[in-house]
Amino acid sequence: MSFPQVTPLTVTHTLTDVDSGLHTEAWTLDSRALATDSDIPWSVAKQTLKGGMQEGVECVDVDNGALSFRILPTRGMGLLRGQYGDVRLGWDSPVKDPVHPAFVDLKDRGGLGWLRGFNEWICRCGMESNGSPGPDVIVDNNGNEAEVLLTVHGKLANTPARTLSVQVSTQDPVTISVTGVVDETMMFGPALRLTSTLSTEAGSNMLTIRDRVTNMKREPAEFQLLYHCNYGVPLLERGSKLLAPFKLVAPRDATAVGGVDGFDRFGRPQPGFVEQVYFYELVGKRGSGETVVLLRNAKGDAGSSLRFSLKSMPCFTLWKNTAAKEDGYVTGLEPATNYPNARRFERDQGRVPVLQGGESWETELRVAVHDSRKQVRAVEAEINGLQMAARATVATAPLGKLSPV
Amino acid sequence: MSFPQVTPLTVTHTLTDVDSGLHTEAWTLDSRALATDSDIPWSVAKQTLKGGMQEGVECVDVDNGALSFRILPTRGMGLLRGQYGDVRLGWDSPVKDPVHPAFVDLKDRGGLGWLRGFNEWICRCGMESNGSPGPDVIVDNNGNEAEVLLTVHGKLANTPARTLSVQVSTQDPVTISVTGVVDETMMFGPALRLTSTLSTEAGSNMLTIRDRVTNMKREPAEFQLLYHCNYGVPLLERGSKLLAPFKLVAPRDATAVGGVDGFDRFGRPQPGFVEQVYFYELVGKRGSGETVVLLRNAKGDAGSSLRFSLKSMPCFTLWKNTAAKEDGYVTGLEPATNYPNARRFERDQGRVPVLQGGESWETELRVAVHDSRKQVRAVEAEINGLQMAARATVATAPLGKLSPV
Amino acid sequence: MSFPQVTPLTVTHTLTDVDSGLHTEAWTLDSRALATDSDIPWSVAKQTLKGGMQEGVECVDVDNGALSFRILPTRGMGLLRGQYGDVRLGWDSPVKDPVHPAFVDLKDRGGLGWLRGFNEWICRCGMESNGSPGPDVIVDNNGNEAEVLLTVHGKLANTPARTLSVQVSTQDPVTISVTGVVDETMMFGPALRLTSTLSTEAGSNMLTIRDRVTNMKREPAEFQLLYHCNYGVPLLERGSKLLAPFKLVAPRDATAVGGVDGFDRFGRPQPGFVEQVYFYELVGKRGSGETVVLLRNAKGDAGSSLRFSLKSMPCFTLWKNTAAKEDGYVTGLEPATNYPNARRFERDQGRVPVLQGGESWETELRVAVHDSRKQVRAVEAEINGLQMAARATVATAPLGKLSPV
Repeated sequence: MSFPQVTPLTVTHTLTDVDSGLHTEAWTLDSRALATDSDIPWSVAKQTLKGGMQEGVECVDVDNGALSFRILPTRGMGLLRGQYGDVRLGWDSPVKDPVHPAFVDLKDRGGLGWLRGFNEWICRCGMESNGSPGPDVIVDNNGNEAEVLLTVHGKLANTPARTLSVQVSTQDPVTISVTGVVDETMMFGPALRLTSTLSTEAGSNMLTIRDRVTNMKREPAEFQLLYHCNYGVPLLERGSKLLAPFKLVAPRDATAVGGVDGFDRFGRPQPGFVEQVYFYELVGKRGSGETVVLLRNAKGDAGSSLRFSLKSMPCFTLWKNTAAKEDGYVTGLEPATNYPNARRFERDQGRVPVLQGGESWETELRVAVHDSRKQVRAVEAEINGLQMAARATVATAPLGKLSPV
Repeated sequence: MSFPQVTPLTVTHTLTDVDSGLHTEAWTLDSRALATDSDIPWSVAKQTLKGGMQEGVECVDVDNGALSFRILPTRGMGLLRGQYGDVRLGWDSPVKDPVHPAFVDLKDRGGLGWLRGFNEWICRCGMESNGSPGPDVIVDNNGNEAEVLLTVHGKLANTPARTLSVQVSTQDPVTISVTGVVDETMMFGPALRLTSTLSTEAGSNMLTIRDRVTNMKREPAEFQLLYHCNYGVPLLERGSKLLAPFKLVAPRDATAVGGVDGFDRFGRPQPGFVEQVYFYELVGKRGSGETVVLLRNAKGDAGSSLRFSLKSMPCFTLWKNTAAKEDGYVTGLEPATNYPNARRFERDQGRVPVLQGGESWETELRVAVHDSRKQVRAVEAEINGLQMAARATVATAPLGKLSPV
Repeated sequence: MSFPQVTPLTVTHTLTDVDSGLHTEAWTLDSRALATDSDIPWSVAKQTLKGGMQEGVECVDVDNGALSFRILPTRGMGLLRGQYGDVRLGWDSPVKDPVHPAFVDLKDRGGLGWLRGFNEWICRCGMESNGSPGPDVIVDNNGNEAEVLLTVHGKLANTPARTLSVQVSTQDPVTISVTGVVDETMMFGPALRLTSTLSTEAGSNMLTIRDRVTNMKREPAEFQLLYHCNYGVPLLERGSKLLAPFKLVAPRDATAVGGVDGFDRFGRPQPGFVEQVYFYELVGKRGSGETVVLLRNAKGDAGSSLRFSLKSMPCFTLWKNTAAKEDGYVTGLEPATNYPNARRFERDQGRVPVLQGGESWETELRVAVHDSRKQVRAVEAEINGLQMAARATVATAPLGKLSPV
């Protein structure tokens, strides 16, 4: 993978830079204002939301002429929602507005406070930890071990970016990129830096997330990253299906066991539905480890696919929460460094990566939208091709290496 | 009860609307700018406070020409203070300024962090819970029960309104109304919406609070609401009295037992005074359940009354905290769905109402100020009339159904 | 000690005053705009930082023509950094930006959340408590004792000033003073007010901090205050030394015992270094109790000294954290009312002062920078002179009266 190159034909606008004191409250750039090689209309705009829980939340709206999406620098560079033609990307959470971190107490409800701000299409979980809340051991300033509560899915989604810039390459294909830097640091604790670039080509059906996590300390540090990619209607509906090339799928717990027969299919909104979670060992291309998963609708004429490498993100989790519409009818596709169990369990299974001082981890996640039967079938064929390299096993009970008992 | 009707003769100004991206930093409207049928001068103005702990706190000041009050949309549509002629409505808390929720950690001091922002005249306690801090059981995303700490008096007072509008009806009687919507929501938790309208007629001595709490989820949800109506000098002084028609009054605990002889009378500021709390079963009008309570000064020539229906708020609590002036010389009159014990105890006593999916609860609280002996006597006579329907019993020890042992 | 006198020759600008609703977003005053008796160029400017975790952090930059420093009213009137010629005052924390309190959860990591915002040159720790996190007993609203967790170093550094003003005396010596008032208050808890004035004379190498802590309640209240004065490069380097006149120095714990031979000397950055803490009983002048400590570099041609009275601050702590540069290479010189152990232990040792209702505590801390061998030697001579009044004892093991076992 490579990070975007700045060439003379690339226009860069820095909107926020804490080091130099630069900050832009509102800003816009579009194809009428900037001459390019293409005649596809596009735009990128930044604003700061006001009122209620969204007071002070910055957002960047990118429209490539076909695909549009809203980035939230204030919430760790997450993606609130997207739109591609008639296909809405995202879901309807009981939480209506993007929530400023000042209103989120991560420790609320026994470490579930993160859920008070959870309504994004794509939300990063990390960086110090992610997964279920639970006790884990840290080392304090005195060098002593201490048991503390890790809260669900960590702090990243409630940490604002300290730099924000927009790049537009004016040569065909015109590419719009938004880069943010988010620091999750403390004295005597982790100092992890996320450098995230989200880019999309004018007129395309895809956006690419290129993320780098750097351990800014000299001491080694653990980190975790999970991309919580969430879909509601219209891609999620009765008869929708999750396609993925896999070696193994296992239910997380007894509730998931109850749904294991139809683990990859979705039902209509069902009041009182309790979430079912399935852990995947996916198959990727030999060498690159590239893989692809697809959520498609019942008719098979619309879907969204995620492409990533198992080298950086070996774990994939399917979160099925087909509850009543008002309660959050949603499924989460979750490529990650780990499964979203409590960190202590994941460490015991060898699934918590460690960065040496100054070392970085990089990943690339490509999110595409498909709005025709032909496109959907092409991705299905690709998945079927990958599946040929491995026998697909579905465990009918939780496996100890994947689920804490 | 009925919610305000919008007629062609009503002027509406939307100041905040998160859905449409509308937000107004500062705004004013008064009787010079808007022609009405009345010549009583009135005004309504919105501003955003700056500096210290009040940074970012929005407030709406309503002056009906006789009664004025300050609404805090940022603090759950609470009322910071009021004024009617010489009668100050409110009290002097050690907390001097209206506190922005970002500076309040509800979990502080074992769940007493709410007290760091407590200085309102009328503060709503709820909606998921109110009352003393204590453990209670919730259901988490996995459908499992988990014990968590509920913090004192809940989150509502530290949750900002997501919409805010002002309505003025121009026909006599000219009525000024302020409506706010406050969402207390989370994924896998309660999603309760407060729609609150505070209205007052030009020249009157009264304001009316009409509140609706809606369960926005499909699943049933508990809720609690308590109106913490707090008075210091001048209505609270040595010799002040609380008048209320009741069947039963019981002391909450041993400390309240110590003051039970004078449970409805108030002393001068007394350094080291420990709060005394009395639980009331009030008497209301047959049918409507309407009742009225009155705090009056020593001379009996000034007071403030609360009118509400026992159908929506069957419980009433008197909080006596006649501590030193510097420490918070105050009494709280608290109509509510419940007594302010920990939620677990209240549930066991059947006093935690449940809203079905989409269902609403409504209430109306009318707060009046009386500045003559004649007015005070009229309310006293009304209370005496209500008392005739029941024998008044004062328990001299805590009762198990009202107080946890 | 005396607080600054306002004379006709003093110009006062109030920048923030919550009581009167006054607030100034940005402001500047300098020697070109205000005629004085001196021709030394000076300036004082206020701005509000934007972006990332520093969004909304107010800062006041003072430059006396020789010494400059940045005050953070939003962080309890702390000093982010200073500069005097080539001598940088402050250190490089893994936390890069001044952090707004809204992003700090003091309860994080078992009460170590304060470390998420810790990067100041001089940071006050208090007022209700400071020191290590730990359980302690409070009295709640019911008059009952309850055990709660006190978080490390208290709330003051994450509490914004409610008033802020600048005074310039125009007669020689021209003096620039910045005064802020910070309230740490709650109902049924402490109501402590810090009134802090930081002043410096044009062209001088010194700034003076005059602080007053007032118990605004009628009831007596404990308080603690510690000045965490932190230095990295260039004053901290291999061969730097801490000079102080003392009767007793004792290591805090086993780790400090390991470094007791060179307790007053510093090594180069050492990856994995665990903090070593030494508790001092200093020697002061007979009568006034005035004392001075000095951190000087290896060559002895640059240093910074702290002057204060043992009457107000009888305890002094040396914090050595010569870890890797990336992890926070820093030493803290900490004059205080107490040693930074958990409050419960300090109370047991009689080191937690109590203020009666309305009573105040005052202190003065003078911080100077020395950039020549001659100046450094002069302070060393002064320290040697003070040392002559007492025999210096270095304990080789923790002492029960100073360290919890």
